[in-house]
Amino acid sequence: MKNVTQLEDAPASLGASSRAHTPDIEERILRLFTCPEDAVPRGAETISNMVHAFANETRVSSDVSYDALTKLFMESRIPLEPEDIEQYLCDLDNRVVAHSTNTGSPRFVGHMTSKLPGFMSELAKLVVGLNQNVVKAETAKAATPYERQAIAMVHRLIFEQSDEFYREHIQNTSSTLGAVASGGTLANLFALWCARNHVLGAGNESQGTETEGLAAALKAHGYIGAVIIGSALMHYSLEKAAGLMGLGTASLIKVPVDASNRVIPAKMRTAIEDARANQQAIVAVIGVAGTTDTGAIDPLPEIAQLAQEYDIHFHVDAAWGGPVLFSRQHRHKLQGITGADSVTIDGHKQLYLPMGIGLTIFRNPTKARAVEKQARYIIRPRSVDLGRRAIEGSRPSAAIYLHAGLNILGARGYEYLMDQGISKAAYFADRVNTMPEFELLVEPEINIVVYRYVPEQLRDKAAGKALTPEDNQLINDWNTALQKIQRQSGNSFVSRTALSTTCYGPEPAIISLRAIFANPLTTLSDIELVLNEQLQIARSMPAGSFSLRRAV
Amino acid sequence: MKNVTQLEDAPASLGASSRAHTPDIEERILRLFTCPEDAVPRGAETISNMVHAFANETRVSSDVSYDALTKLFMESRIPLEPEDIEQYLCDLDNRVVAHSTNTGSPRFVGHMTSKLPGFMSELAKLVVGLNQNVVKAETAKAATPYERQAIAMVHRLIFEQSDEFYREHIQNTSSTLGAVASGGTLANLFALWCARNHVLGAGNESQGTETEGLAAALKAHGYIGAVIIGSALMHYSLEKAAGLMGLGTASLIKVPVDASNRVIPAKMRTAIEDARANQQAIVAVIGVAGTTDTGAIDPLPEIAQLAQEYDIHFHVDAAWGGPVLFSRQHRHKLQGITGADSVTIDGHKQLYLPMGIGLTIFRNPTKARAVEKQARYIIRPRSVDLGRRAIEGSRPSAAIYLHAGLNILGARGYEYLMDQGISKAAYFADRVNTMPEFELLVEPEINIVVYRYVPEQLRDKAAGKALTPEDNQLINDWNTALQKIQRQSGNSFVSRTALSTTCYGPEPAIISLRAIFANPLTTLSDIELVLNEQLQIARSMPAGSFSLRRAV
Repeated sequence: MKNVTQLEDAPASLGASSRAHTPDIEERILRLFTCPEDAVPRGAETISNMVHAFANETRVSSDVSYDALTKLFMESRIPLEPEDIEQYLCDLDNRVVAHSTNTGSPRFVGHMTSKLPGFMSELAKLVVGLNQNVVKAETAKAATPYERQAIAMVHRLIFEQSDEFYREHIQNTSSTLGAVASGGTLANLFALWCARNHVLGAGNESQGTETEGLAAALKAHGYIGAVIIGSALMHYSLEKAAGLMGLGTASLIKVPVDASNRVIPAKMRTAIEDARANQQAIVAVIGVAGTTDTGAIDPLPEIAQLAQEYDIHFHVDAAWGGPVLFSRQHRHKLQGITGADSVTIDGHKQLYLPMGIGLTIFRNPTKARAVEKQARYIIRPRSVDLGRRAIEGSRPSAAIYLHAGLNILGARGYEYLMDQGISKAAYFADRVNTMPEFELLVEPEINIVVYRYVPEQLRDKAAGKALTPEDNQLINDWNTALQKIQRQSGNSFVSRTALSTTCYGPEPAIISLRAIFANPLTTLSDIELVLNEQLQIARSMPAGSFSLRRAV
Repeated sequence: MKNVTQLEDAPASLGASSRAHTPDIEERILRLFTCPEDAVPRGAETISNMVHAFANETRVSSDVSYDALTKLFMESRIPLEPEDIEQYLCDLDNRVVAHSTNTGSPRFVGHMTSKLPGFMSELAKLVVGLNQNVVKAETAKAATPYERQAIAMVHRLIFEQSDEFYREHIQNTSSTLGAVASGGTLANLFALWCARNHVLGAGNESQGTETEGLAAALKAHGYIGAVIIGSALMHYSLEKAAGLMGLGTASLIKVPVDASNRVIPAKMRTAIEDARANQQAIVAVIGVAGTTDTGAIDPLPEIAQLAQEYDIHFHVDAAWGGPVLFSRQHRHKLQGITGADSVTIDGHKQLYLPMGIGLTIFRNPTKARAVEKQARYIIRPRSVDLGRRAIEGSRPSAAIYLHAGLNILGARGYEYLMDQGISKAAYFADRVNTMPEFELLVEPEINIVVYRYVPEQLRDKAAGKALTPEDNQLINDWNTALQKIQRQSGNSFVSRTALSTTCYGPEPAIISLRAIFANPLTTLSDIELVLNEQLQIARSMPAGSFSLRRAV
């Protein structure tokens, strides 16, 4: 390793710019890059302690309000002089870590962010330390085939092709079994980008939408618009995709769902027929495997059948539910996924990987060629570079987390994780069902439970299914306030959402508490604590205040 | 912290699924999450040693060929049983780390990926350990205002607004001073998405392109197409943006550049006039501040003037060059950037942050409202959630790296880094100019040098500017081969590109060697070593072989 003294061979002729810097700045900056013994280990130990202390905390967050917290972050000037690392880390600890959300707390059961295995934060040091850039093999020599391998493993989990298939494609640079992106939004977008370019590809004297644009391609192909068809409960990332790709969010055709929040295939068929009748290109039909609100899984075999019958790209958004494939007991819920043309799975959800890993997996390894790009300084034709078929350019070797997770947890490890979450959700739903204060809103399909608190004066009406819209509005206000108070207290956490598909009909949407069970360290005691805290909060709430403020 | 024994309060009634797992699996997986003393520190030390050894290596890569390397990554099955961490890390070290590209080597001067300060890999442990999800304040309570602060600091670096301006907007949830995305491609896309939605917004009885789609919005606004206008040397991410957004890559109007690779304003004006005459909506004009090939900076004041005159969104792609603003000596090269409506800067380039951090900075804090999305379980109207105005959904608190970099390096630290790179590039260009074996192809504007080796028999013709296209093709073949041999040897590295803007005209494009000086540990000895190695390689190359294979 270079050290500061070795740099003395840089002659003074490096020029005025070099001399303009005080020797002090040069020395301090070079120390940060060379990491002599007395510099980094100090910081390293401080950070290890910070991580350790944070992981040992069971509280979900501090009770400082968000508004009060913002006052700590008002300075907009970049400091002129370098700040001492230890001092910076101390500030970071006091201002950021102390008020961070403890997503790994066993009592944080409200969002799709959960506890990670401890080795993931250690691996992070390696991912950043290696600083590979996977856009190009020249900056990611081993990370390139390594990522291809990890992607192939996930492909095999979903599509179960033959040994021969994988031997042929796993390291074949013409093939794209899938891609790693920074999240599920990009993974969905990537799949739909490929699908759009196929449907509106070159032909009919058009070079296709990717080259000529959407308006010209639609015209050439005899369409007046293009749509994406899926459940009314599709993730909002698909709205982004429709808006961003120039289709418009209105082109996202939202097909009604049944009482279990699963799309109704007969209505999807009608939507397809309508689109065809109205000269709309159908970019894709989408099946959701684990809706964000309730974890519902669409009837994938029926959608696959429709997609095949009408020759439409079938995309499965399994960002949440995909890893249920590991569970021998529950994988039948994803039956039909093998009929998908593309599948999204989020690594940072139920693969228990760090934030920012979305996977798009393609059944057909040629599908992603529809978006191929080249540049002369990298990703030249015939190159092995992963950047040739991707939305992103420069990106880290996040496949290190994926590959390590798949191997260190193993299929059986993931099976255990899936099963324990689903079991806890069933337990939680049972508890809710047995407590008169609560109403279970949807029977959980996997590990998400939506329910609500019902104030005492309305429990009889609720039990008799006789609630009016005004009653539901009142209950909504109770639950909004309850969730906010619980969140603010910082002791435990569930999220809230609004459901239009309960037995109460679409209006008003029912404000629901939402509990998600992924953290394997969440015990049944934690579950009781979450529910008991809600009862306590409800008892302390002044009923009269709810007409003042509607749900935000 | 929970440990395994505390989990015993989970009753057996958790059901069949739980019992289906062997106690061994359950215990092993829970140990990975609880990190008892004997588990993680072992892995932690191994990883620290791996990172340390890698950082101490000066070689750029192993000499194993890419094809040979792929043979190590052929298994496509996910192992059934969890693998031992130590065993996995040992494999990772042997198969991946050993063959990774040492982008931090002082002799790796070929791509925009360089050495990072040592504290970045330590911070990675914290970023992953905290596992914040910045899409929503409920999963990133402190990380949300903290990111807003870091973004405001970069905004101030570029736009230098008043104290009052920053007090008003820095923590104001209605304002978006900028956004953090996973890279420059997304940062450019985000800026252009906002710009497109403004130009083709609601009005003329249309709800605008985001809702109704591009075809309908163009029609409503009386356009027949939409274009993006910028230099012929725009980054290929802008092609992705044009394709993805439905404009089509052909709608990217590439304006010619001068001999310094800077766009010619008069020709840009013509392109604007042509687009207007042809009923094309102009989504944006783009100025490049640091082209990927040569580091050229477009004449930003002139483009800003055009943008203002024609009322067009002005985007500056300063992914590479943006941090030159820190240099008192060189910041004048970016004069005019204050006239931009949006600016892209990459954190993982010249802010020396880990891979995967692109910043879009908006002069006007209301600009990003054009892409706002909501969802009922998160990012509700009026919420403080950063996910409301972003391409990505879930994402890590990468602002930790940004904020730490800005503070721990400080403005003067970044100034030093910018100046040393520019000085070394000037030194390198001087050396190339004085050596008869090499030809400097473009005078470096900042810290990128493009040059080539000229075989002996053509040096006189080259000196006399009398090379024919056939001569240049032969020289191209020499340089392609030379770069590949140097890359394969693994001792040092420069990249190669193809230039159509040299004094030799567009055909054939001139294959060029490309050296980039960012690593502060690169010494003048390293520079000599890189050049000497190229001379040695050239001397050993059999001239006759070059007609066999064209540049790849």
